[in-house]
Order: sequence, then structure tokens, then C-alpha cells
Amino acid sequence: MNSPAMWMARALRLAYRGLYTTDPNPRVGCVLVKQDRLVGEGYHKRAGEPHAEINALRQAGDNARGATAYVTLEPCAHHGRTGPCAQALIDAGVTEVVAAMQDPNSQVAGKGFAQLETAGIMVGWGLLEEEARALNPGFISRMSRGRPYVRLKMAMSLDGRTAMSSGESQWITGPAARTQVQRLRARSSAVVSGIDSIIFDDSRLTVRAEQLQLNDAESIASRQPLRVILDSHLRMPLAAACLREPGRTLVMTCQQDDDRRQSLIEAGADVVVLPAGKDGRVGLVALMEYLASEEQINEVLLETGATLAGAMLDEELVDEMQLFLAPTLLGGEARPLFALPGLETMAQRRGLEIIDIRAVGNDWRITARPKPAGASRRA
Amino acid sequence: MNSPAMWMARALRLAYRGLYTTDPNPRVGCVLVKQDRLVGEGYHKRAGEPHAEINALRQAGDNARGATAYVTLEPCAHHGRTGPCAQALIDAGVTEVVAAMQDPNSQVAGKGFAQLETAGIMVGWGLLEEEARALNPGFISRMSRGRPYVRLKMAMSLDGRTAMSSGESQWITGPAARTQVQRLRARSSAVVSGIDSIIFDDSRLTVRAEQLQLNDAESIASRQPLRVILDSHLRMPLAAACLREPGRTLVMTCQQDDDRRQSLIEAGADVVVLPAGKDGRVGLVALMEYLASEEQINEVLLETGATLAGAMLDEELVDEMQLFLAPTLLGGEARPLFALPGLETMAQRRGLEIIDIRAVGNDWRITARPKPAGASRRA
Repeated sequence: MNSPAMWMARALRLAYRGLYTTDPNPRVGCVLVKQDRLVGEGYHKRAGEPHAEINALRQAGDNARGATAYVTLEPCAHHGRTGPCAQALIDAGVTEVVAAMQDPNSQVAGKGFAQLETAGIMVGWGLLEEEARALNPGFISRMSRGRPYVRLKMAMSLDGRTAMSSGESQWITGPAARTQVQRLRARSSAVVSGIDSIIFDDSRLTVRAEQLQLNDAESIASRQPLRVILDSHLRMPLAAACLREPGRTLVMTCQQDDDRRQSLIEAGADVVVLPAGKDGRVGLVALMEYLASEEQINEVLLETGATLAGAMLDEELVDEMQLFLAPTLLGGEARPLFALPGLETMAQRRGLEIIDIRAVGNDWRITARPKPAGASRRA
Repeated sequence: MNSPAMWMARALRLAYRGLYTTDPNPRVGCVLVKQDRLVGEGYHKRAGEPHAEINALRQAGDNARGATAYVTLEPCAHHGRTGPCAQALIDAGVTEVVAAMQDPNSQVAGKGFAQLETAGIMVGWGLLEEEARALNPGFISRMSRGRPYVRLKMAMSLDGRTAMSSGESQWITGPAARTQVQRLRARSSAVVSGIDSIIFDDSRLTVRAEQLQLNDAESIASRQPLRVILDSHLRMPLAAACLREPGRTLVMTCQQDDDRRQSLIEAGADVVVLPAGKDGRVGLVALMEYLASEEQINEVLLETGATLAGAMLDEELVDEMQLFLAPTLLGGEARPLFALPGLETMAQRRGLEIIDIRAVGNDWRITARPKPAGASRRA
């Protein structure tokens, strides 16, 4: 006899198959079980294609009648591009639905469950909820907080440096770490960077199929994350390499220069003017809200230098840090990881929770979460 | 039937019991085996007390006759404080000696083996040699290179900072990390620090029994490592706390100020004048050679700031780094881990080999070895 948790774990694994492709939709998996036997399973692969429940029901056919559905997210009750899944489960004769979590959109949360219950279906939820939430940090953040989940990626030396003082920084980390970064880009809805990365390094910020080291790399790289360049003073070069890559480049500025803007649009960029923050630069909270509401951005990969990284930390907009630590020393003159102006005493230091440290080739990958400012003092 | 490697592993474990106490002697263990049965075992505990072989022979008594001795280091042939062990093994009628390694002192290496062979004893060596060498990195370094094994300890934030720009640095890491540092001190022959640690923090640099979290902590702390303060300009305060602690404080200077020197001696310090290096400070190579030859220093724990740490790295005098990484950010204005002046391009960066990363309380401990300068480029 398999436990409900085992079936749900199977649904979670199915959902992960959509890790790189469902954007802007959530990753969802569904397993249909009758008399302890799997009768159908499915996951959501790509926006516009069927939801997980529909794929599982199709596989089960008539066997869905009397089955229990294990699904990693509350089935939708609304008519989206593919029709409501709750109704499809009812129509197929499913008798019980176990969901890992409620819909994170408070506007619709519980509506799918209610529709199922009204039809006489037994409903439960909360099984492996934490694991299910970890599947879709970006979608959940956008739905519940109105902003994306921000993952800050940095490559640093063991002494916390990202580049020489000249700016020279190529190849701090090795190929295995670069593959990991490519995968982080590939799962993200957007890659956010500062204009300096474009001006000094001509960064392309793209997913490169050959570096992903995944079986379906070509298919994954066919969706390029939105490239978002913070460019408060509209210095974006018209010849920037990223403007010639597949996918869109969004230049976020607070400069109302119509000529320049027009030239950039002709060069292939989208240009959005946002109000400046108090420092005269693009306001970061407004930026994140814009990305969530106007571009449906779930997960952001922030790839940038000390100033923007520090400002994002200061505004408490960083949800997760992915630090790639190279076994090297760059010395005290090299560029710091974070500019955190105003941090002068130990009591003000920013606390982190280190979630994971693991070897990646010759480098090390540290996953950490910033604690809220003021929560950093140690016991 | 136990394999020779299993017996040698037992001898190694015995040797480790002397980790904190044998200084300046090496840690050595010995196991006597006859017909696959243990007949005696011993280890060297403290200088002046019997060597491992003698303790094992005493335990075995008449059973030593016809036994095989597994010993982690070549038995000595010379008349030291306790008489030659090779002769004692011969006298006891041992018929075979298996050593993990030769004596690292090239003046006497092989002499113990030769003495045994002349007496008709079968001799072998090299079994678990790497493990045996790891027991005594300092003793081996002193004997073979004429300088101590230097372990650099630093506590840093995740962004590679050791203190705020004001110098404030107390409690970056938590209590578990501090216990680890205490144990590193306790196994060292000397703790080396710069005069700034004394002037600004009034560091005591002592082993504190209550922080060791070991059963025999009081006994261990009864041997305090030599405190060595680099004080090129003889700024040592007469009221420094470390001068009132048990054990010796050695002030290394290049200042020929007889009055000041006399006052410091009266305050409890030993003062040694060494020739200045090209920067007008105490020459670091000369210092290390002095510590090995005049003070029999095996393992040095270097506890210092960015300047001295960087200079030691530059002179390639650091054998091992112990970095305690606190889950916190101190920002780009805080003090760096290493000053490495002259390091300006990525090609000049110093390569490290990371040996180990492990959790220590809420902090992380990274063990790394600097690669020789010029060997840092990645493939």
C-alpha cells in the first residue's frame, strides 16, 4: 500500500519536469490513483498547453472514474486558456482530490476546492505543502506579494571579491559553475542586470543550450528569459550584443529622452520609463512591481555588481542568494561583493541563513537567504 | 585475521591521544601484536615522559617477545631524554617492526631502521604513511624545512570581511566556532599575532579550558602555546593582558631600544630582536626559522589581520587556512580578509585548494591550502 505522501511525491517529481518551460505558469504535477494503482499522470509543460490534471485525465481515460487525484496545486476553477481543471475532474468522475497547496492568488484561493466539494468530491490539502511551495517560489511571490521571487547570483573569490579593481572578472569560476548559472537563467522568467554589465562586458544574458548539459537543452533554450537592464540614464549602447539575441530586452529607465528611446526601440529594445527613486535611479520596488504586474515575471535572476546587489539587499528585495565561491584570493583591492552604505557597526550587520553549501566542480555553491534587517544579531 | 593496516590505524588513533600534549615532540602511537592478538599498546603523551614504544613494551611485558610492532614513526636510535626506542624493541625480543613513516629529520632518518635490521629484526615502512604525516605536520615541517607548519585562522563574513572599518569585530562567529579555534590553539606550539591585536583588542591568545569542550581540558590548558607578537617598532603595552597570563609571551621586534626592552622584560615578556625585512618590519622568513630553531615550534596558529596575513601569504609561509565563515554580510566598507598589494590582474590571483567545508554551529569552517604563486591559473 503506497501512502498518500508517496503519490504526492510522484506528482511533485512530475511537476519538476516543467521547471524550465511552464513560465509564466506554475509548475504542476498530477497523479490519478485507483485502488492503490496508478491510472494516469501528467504535468504542465508549457503555457497554452494542457494543465497537469488534463494530461493525467487523458492518460487515465475511463479509469479516472472513482480515482483519487493527487495534485501539487489547487485545481483552477476559472476559464483560462484551457478551461477549468476542477470541472474536468468532476466530469471525469474523480471521487477524491488531494492537493499539496491552495492557489496562492488570494482572489481565487479555495474556489477550485469549493467547486469540487459542491460536486460531492472529497477534498484535502496541505500534503507536502512545503515541497510544493518550493516548486514555484516565483509564481507564489507574484500572486501573493505582487512581485517576483528574486535570486541573486554572484561569483566570488574566497575573500569575497567579484572582480579586480580594473573590472577584470572573466572566469572567476569554472565550467561546472557556469552550467549551474545557465540553469538558473533557464528556470527564470527574467534576468535583471545593470547597464554596467552591458557597457563594460557586453553581456548577452542568454541561455545557451550547449552549456545547460541537459537532454532537452535546445527546447529549453527556445524560451529565453526576459532581459531587464536597469539603465537610469539611458546609456544603453545601440550595438549591445544582447539586442541581437533571441528573446526580448527591456530597458528600464527614468530618463524621458524620446529620441534616444526611439533609437533603442529601433535597435530592438523595449524601453520603459519608471519614476526615479530618491537617489535619482530607477526605483527598485516599483521595478519589481512592474515586472510582476506587466510582464508576469515569477522568478528573477539578478546578475549584477556590488552597487545594485547592495541596493536590492537594502530594499529587502532579495529572496535568495546563489554564491559561487572560487578557491582563489583576489586581495583587498579587488571589487567587493556588496556595497552596503550606512552599514558601520556590527549591530547593523545583515544576517543570512545558509541553506546549502556544495561542491560544483572546483568551486563551491552557497545558497543563502537574507534575514530581515534588524534580525541579524546573534544570540 | 586483522590486516596490518588495521593495526596501524589503531596505532594512529592512539597517537592522536597526544594531539594536545606532546609538544615539542611528535605524536606517536605503537601497537604490539603477536599471532593476530594485541599484546601491548601505547602512545607518547608528554615530552619527558616515555615514548610510545616504551609504553607499549611495558604493557606487553614478556609477551613482546616474538611480537610485531606497528609504530606510526620510525623508532628513534638516539639517546634523548628517554633512551633509544630501537634498542628497547631489540631488547624486548620484538621480531618485526612496521613503521608508517621514516623519521623526518634527514640527519637521523633510517638510523632507527638500520639499528633494528642489524639486530636481525624485519623492518618495513610506508604503511598509512599519508595518515601518519597528517598527525605531525609541524614536527615534519620543522625537521625537514627548518620552519613551522603555519595554520592561518580567520573569522569572516560571507562577503569576506573580518571587521567593521572601525575595527569592531567581536563575535562575528558563534560559540561552536570559538571552541574550534580554542582547539586549534591548544594543538599549536605557538600562536602568532600582530601588535595591533594587542593594542586594539588586548587579546590574551590563551587556551581557555572551559571553552575546549574536552574531557581533559584542564590538563590540556596547563600547557599554553607560546604567544608570539610581531612588534616591529616595540609598541607593546606594558599592561597588556597577555603578559599576565600563564605561559610565555615572545615579542619579536627589529627595534634596538634597550630601555623599552628592559621594561618589557620586567613586565613579563621575552624580547627578541631580529633583522628588519625590506619593508622595515620583522622579516617573516627569519621569524619562522627562529621559531623552529630556537623555540622548537612545530605548529603555528596565525591569528591576525589582513596586512600580516597577506604578507605571510605573499612570502608563501602559510601552509593551511582555517576560515570560519559567519552567515552575515558586513558590506564593502568593512575590513578585508587579505591585503595582497601588487595583485592587480586575474592572472596574478592566488589559487587555493579547498580541502573541506563543514558546518560548525551556525557558521561554516573552510579548510584550504594556498597553491604556490604562479600555479593559480585555471585550466
